[in-house]
Amino acid sequence: MEEIRYIEGNVKNQQEELSLLEHAGEIVEIHGSIYKIRKMRGFAFVLLRTAKHVIQCVYSEEKASFSLEELEEESCVIFQAEVVKEERSRTGVELHLIGMEVLSRPYEKSPVVINQKQVDTSIATLLDYRPVTLRNEKERAIFRIQNGITNAVRRFLQGKGFTEIHTPKIGSAGAEGGANIFRLDYFGKEAYLAQSPQFYKQMMVGVYERVFEIAPVFRAEKHDTSRHLNEYTSVDFEMGYVTRVEELMEMEAAMLKFVFASLKEECQEELALLQVEIPEWKEIPAIPFAKAKEIVAKIRKRAVEEPEDLEPEEEKLLSEWILKETGSELVFVTEYPEKKRPFYAMDSETNPNVTKSFDLLYKGLEVTTGGLRIHNYEEQVAKMKRRGMHPEVFESYLMAHKCGLPPHGGLGLGLERFTSRLLGFENVRRASLFPRDIHRLVP
Amino acid sequence: MEEIRYIEGNVKNQQEELSLLEHAGEIVEIHGSIYKIRKMRGFAFVLLRTAKHVIQCVYSEEKASFSLEELEEESCVIFQAEVVKEERSRTGVELHLIGMEVLSRPYEKSPVVINQKQVDTSIATLLDYRPVTLRNEKERAIFRIQNGITNAVRRFLQGKGFTEIHTPKIGSAGAEGGANIFRLDYFGKEAYLAQSPQFYKQMMVGVYERVFEIAPVFRAEKHDTSRHLNEYTSVDFEMGYVTRVEELMEMEAAMLKFVFASLKEECQEELALLQVEIPEWKEIPAIPFAKAKEIVAKIRKRAVEEPEDLEPEEEKLLSEWILKETGSELVFVTEYPEKKRPFYAMDSETNPNVTKSFDLLYKGLEVTTGGLRIHNYEEQVAKMKRRGMHPEVFESYLMAHKCGLPPHGGLGLGLERFTSRLLGFENVRRASLFPRDIHRLVP
Repeated sequence: MEEIRYIEGNVKNQQEELSLLEHAGEIVEIHGSIYKIRKMRGFAFVLLRTAKHVIQCVYSEEKASFSLEELEEESCVIFQAEVVKEERSRTGVELHLIGMEVLSRPYEKSPVVINQKQVDTSIATLLDYRPVTLRNEKERAIFRIQNGITNAVRRFLQGKGFTEIHTPKIGSAGAEGGANIFRLDYFGKEAYLAQSPQFYKQMMVGVYERVFEIAPVFRAEKHDTSRHLNEYTSVDFEMGYVTRVEELMEMEAAMLKFVFASLKEECQEELALLQVEIPEWKEIPAIPFAKAKEIVAKIRKRAVEEPEDLEPEEEKLLSEWILKETGSELVFVTEYPEKKRPFYAMDSETNPNVTKSFDLLYKGLEVTTGGLRIHNYEEQVAKMKRRGMHPEVFESYLMAHKCGLPPHGGLGLGLERFTSRLLGFENVRRASLFPRDIHRLVP
Repeated sequence: MEEIRYIEGNVKNQQEELSLLEHAGEIVEIHGSIYKIRKMRGFAFVLLRTAKHVIQCVYSEEKASFSLEELEEESCVIFQAEVVKEERSRTGVELHLIGMEVLSRPYEKSPVVINQKQVDTSIATLLDYRPVTLRNEKERAIFRIQNGITNAVRRFLQGKGFTEIHTPKIGSAGAEGGANIFRLDYFGKEAYLAQSPQFYKQMMVGVYERVFEIAPVFRAEKHDTSRHLNEYTSVDFEMGYVTRVEELMEMEAAMLKFVFASLKEECQEELALLQVEIPEWKEIPAIPFAKAKEIVAKIRKRAVEEPEDLEPEEEKLLSEWILKETGSELVFVTEYPEKKRPFYAMDSETNPNVTKSFDLLYKGLEVTTGGLRIHNYEEQVAKMKRRGMHPEVFESYLMAHKCGLPPHGGLGLGLERFTSRLLGFENVRRASLFPRDIHRLVP
């Protein structure tokens, strides 16, 4: 029938820009956005922002078939150009412009200057104008590195036999509770947004033994600090047939080692641009919570205060001390007090006041919380009752325990916090594309 | 300091079960959950469910150091066993049990029989008892295939230069509107849950040229049908420097080809278990919307009704007709009426009543909606005004257009719908781990 056309699926990428060097001496066509124009008399330096690079171009009246005035920043173009070797250029080449087809032009100039080395503005303005400030070379490098992190995490976990899952973000209001949840009306029923995939990943341990999820979680915390986001991306894994909490920490240490090694290979350019050095390490120190409190008290020259809490300030002091003592930017804090951990945390047999759990601090900030969970049904119900909870509310969660679950545990890693530590940002918002905080719902 | 231990990150997987064949004649240790016991006199057939397989084991009183009564379904164990070649077994081996360490026992038997060939129950019960029914071999194969799909999509898109992004799921209430959004209170402001990452992925085209996201989306649709979910996983991509809508369809066709080829290689066992055949195809037919309406009217022997809508029943008829005519289970419907597409859809130059857009139908069900978008600021604002919308509400979205965007387009693919079509399920809920529909908030 004549009206039917056929779509075959032959697609190609734009000629990979880094291979431009191989085309030295040739004429190529290349598309991108004009990032910056530096006009001289009769010629101009032009930077072309392509999907992955910023390419140096030279406009000269002799060579170009179009006038200098036609060049406009943030217009999208196809250049016809000669590839010329140029050692001083980052890509090893320079493009000598011959022809230009303009695909689109901006309506207005960006209200913020985006084509300098960095966007020189307050964090509020940086975030308010995210749709354009992200076009800055350094800003966009941040999220390419973040993508490098998630790619590496996936590759690592898949290699270790983990299955990736997608669990619901809307749930029944009874299950989690607490003040920090966002509530919504779900066809007349009260529902909440998931603070974590905790219950689901535990259930799924009974199905696949090892599972992970990288997905948004939502916390209605009213903290307005440089380390809190109300929506963030949580990297969660959960694994069965684990009886020692150290096995979880070993898995995380191996994962982070793999992530760092992958970034070095795959995000070289972005890391260089942001002047980030990937830490070299062989092992991560681990220190019990109570001991950590003592150390911090000693540093502060005071008695131990609030023996069940490790305050952000204390986390910083501990991290600094560990860095000095061991050279490590990462430190596990283990054996958290029972009272401060959730009802599913497994208590230590030798000291029921502490749990088989841990946090991971990275340059002074908690980036991971993890631990062994209770897998025995009666034990879990008993602990709930001790805490005044109602097990019947958790019927479907407890169904997994009731019908048999292996010993298991897992952890959650905050992607934005981890990225911000790696890149040395004071404010975690810089590592979120479009952050949500107590004041910020747009863009 | 003695209190500091060190976590080095050496982890290993359980001996990969499929390599058991290489250990024929040896004694191995293997952990898993006892899936099924068939007791005979003095011996028993035992199925062990491991992370990826179900392994046939034989218990005999002569060989085993434990009694038959100690074996219990859904208990988690470590078996010590001799690997014996057995051609009739799916893994090529059989384990002759010697020793057993019990790690956990269920508190109660599962209320639903989960260890038959399939879970023989209504879909409501299947879903009510998801934490245990997912342990069924066929049920869990579904989501391994789904994971195979997302893995393949990621690999394909990364290979084509796409960057994966994470965009917020909570947004300002002004932007999307419409009846089908979930609203929530965000620290005193009205907010909504994202129905799609549409605005954000368009903004990001200005940053990375090609982006994708695989993440939950939320639709408060009151439809109680076999094809609707109120929360689902959307596979979205958006690409710049595209001027023909066919380029988007080519990209999707290539992606699906890659997905099918990958599944064949990586999910062989699961596909065999579910008796799914991966379709072979060279190209996907494409047919204009108006023509599709005519064809369907002809089949029904009626005049064209509701010329701007393609009803689910009509989608089915069209798909059946295309299958008969061309042998294809997939069909693109193109040139959707302007009135039925969102404000950002690009209209055709030759006929402003239709858009440069398409749907993809797979075995009678719409699985993808896509198209070119308006990239020009003034054109977008004019179209909004024609529709009675207020451009000022969309300030941050339009900032991208205002400051220059390349011609671009993209699409969204519903992961659960796609999975359910591939696997031949009548009900899309079967392809969601923990589905959310108008009645279902748990588990």
